[in-house]
Amino acid sequence: MTPPQDPARLTPREARALFRAGLVTPTSGWSAGWTQANLIALPRDRAYDFLLFAQRNAQSCPVLDVTEPGDVAASIFDGDLRTDLPAYRVYELGEQVAETTDVTSYWRDDLVCFLLGCSFTFESALIEAGVPVRHIEAGTNVPMYRTNLPCRSAGELWGPTVVTMRPVPAHLVPAAVRVTSRYPAVHGAPIHVGDPALLGITDLDKPDFGDPVEVRQGELPVFWCCGVTSQAAVMRSRPAFAISHAPGSMAITDVRDSAYAVP
Amino acid sequence: MTPPQDPARLTPREARALFRAGLVTPTSGWSAGWTQANLIALPRDRAYDFLLFAQRNAQSCPVLDVTEPGDVAASIFDGDLRTDLPAYRVYELGEQVAETTDVTSYWRDDLVCFLLGCSFTFESALIEAGVPVRHIEAGTNVPMYRTNLPCRSAGELWGPTVVTMRPVPAHLVPAAVRVTSRYPAVHGAPIHVGDPALLGITDLDKPDFGDPVEVRQGELPVFWCCGVTSQAAVMRSRPAFAISHAPGSMAITDVRDSAYAVP
Repeated sequence: MTPPQDPARLTPREARALFRAGLVTPTSGWSAGWTQANLIALPRDRAYDFLLFAQRNAQSCPVLDVTEPGDVAASIFDGDLRTDLPAYRVYELGEQVAETTDVTSYWRDDLVCFLLGCSFTFESALIEAGVPVRHIEAGTNVPMYRTNLPCRSAGELWGPTVVTMRPVPAHLVPAAVRVTSRYPAVHGAPIHVGDPALLGITDLDKPDFGDPVEVRQGELPVFWCCGVTSQAAVMRSRPAFAISHAPGSMAITDVRDSAYAVP
Repeated sequence: MTPPQDPARLTPREARALFRAGLVTPTSGWSAGWTQANLIALPRDRAYDFLLFAQRNAQSCPVLDVTEPGDVAASIFDGDLRTDLPAYRVYELGEQVAETTDVTSYWRDDLVCFLLGCSFTFESALIEAGVPVRHIEAGTNVPMYRTNLPCRSAGELWGPTVVTMRPVPAHLVPAAVRVTSRYPAVHGAPIHVGDPALLGITDLDKPDFGDPVEVRQGELPVFWCCGVTSQAAVMRSRPAFAISHAPGSMAITDVRDSAYAVP
């Protein structure tokens, strides 16, 4: 399926219809002005530990919505969570057993879906403020890295903070901080500017998830917390079953990003 | 026991020592600049519903910290949660069975403590901005009211939003909104200005919790969400056992209020 000419202008409903029809793409840059979210679906008996992990690591795992067991829509997502994301990963005992565009056949009545804030949400605010977003320009997925920053554990959930990276021209770093700090529910301000080694990242060209991007002369790598943090922690605890979005292929919600902005 | 001359200047540790020794007082105006929190302790098997209720009603129930079952300190409270608040209420099957200054003899190993943000936290910021806080001037507890605004339910937890009210001179209402909106983790901006009847409040002189305060000529009643919202919902669900702070007698934490401020 051919991607649309200008995905930024699609409504969430239009975007979800394309994904439901089988289009696979990173959603960065899609439906500008609408909130995007990480999805993780877990059996009910794992839900408390997950919600507690999210509370204790709220900058990485800001919870936007939680469904009732078995529900396939959410209060902020008026679609079908089983089909309306571009791609999913399915896990058994923490091991990936499938990557697919439709998880209807895997669905279970005891699954609780968690929708977590995603930094794609503030990218249109960055662009409006004149801060270029390299991976959108390149049409690739944002690069994501495991860091040496440990999360606070909850039950069996623990692991490192995962971050996204965007190269920012030095003189625009203050604007990037200022703009994104207005969006605490979607990771907020960066957690680090400048030196990947201090985060335990040895090679920016080899992200743990997503695609590498060029950091040009005069640019600094800027790092934001990433919802994949929770995914990594959950899989390490080896739940009997789990479903997540594929990295970068987010749930596009029906909530304006301005709804999560603070003054 | 005599209250100290200037409770605003006490450190959290000093304030907690007085409460541990038996002083009973509303904590509004105490330890200026330090975050105050609602306490609710529930058996582990009720913890998920509570955490979910808090997530779904985050303006009323902003979660600041959650303990492991049985723990008596928290990451933001380096004291003893059983003794270091001025007063507690103990509940069985949702009915209050005791109000006491020490819950050590009631403690259970399966209790999970939730610390929720409290609007007392932003009162020193209000005073600094020139907005008077009547109940602090009067040395009384803040008035709290049940409203006609329903919460989103979670499991067996449901109920109305409870609010605090502070009378604000009309020309200072914008300042009160601006200042408190910087503190989303402690209820943030008001949810209503001016007309109690629209919230289903029939008589401001008869608060459901706390003490009435005078609303003077030229002042508007301004309403903020209140953590007692969660207490009311929990008790309605009749858990086998629960402990909460007594309304207005909060946990004074070791976190500066600035830590919860947004730009």
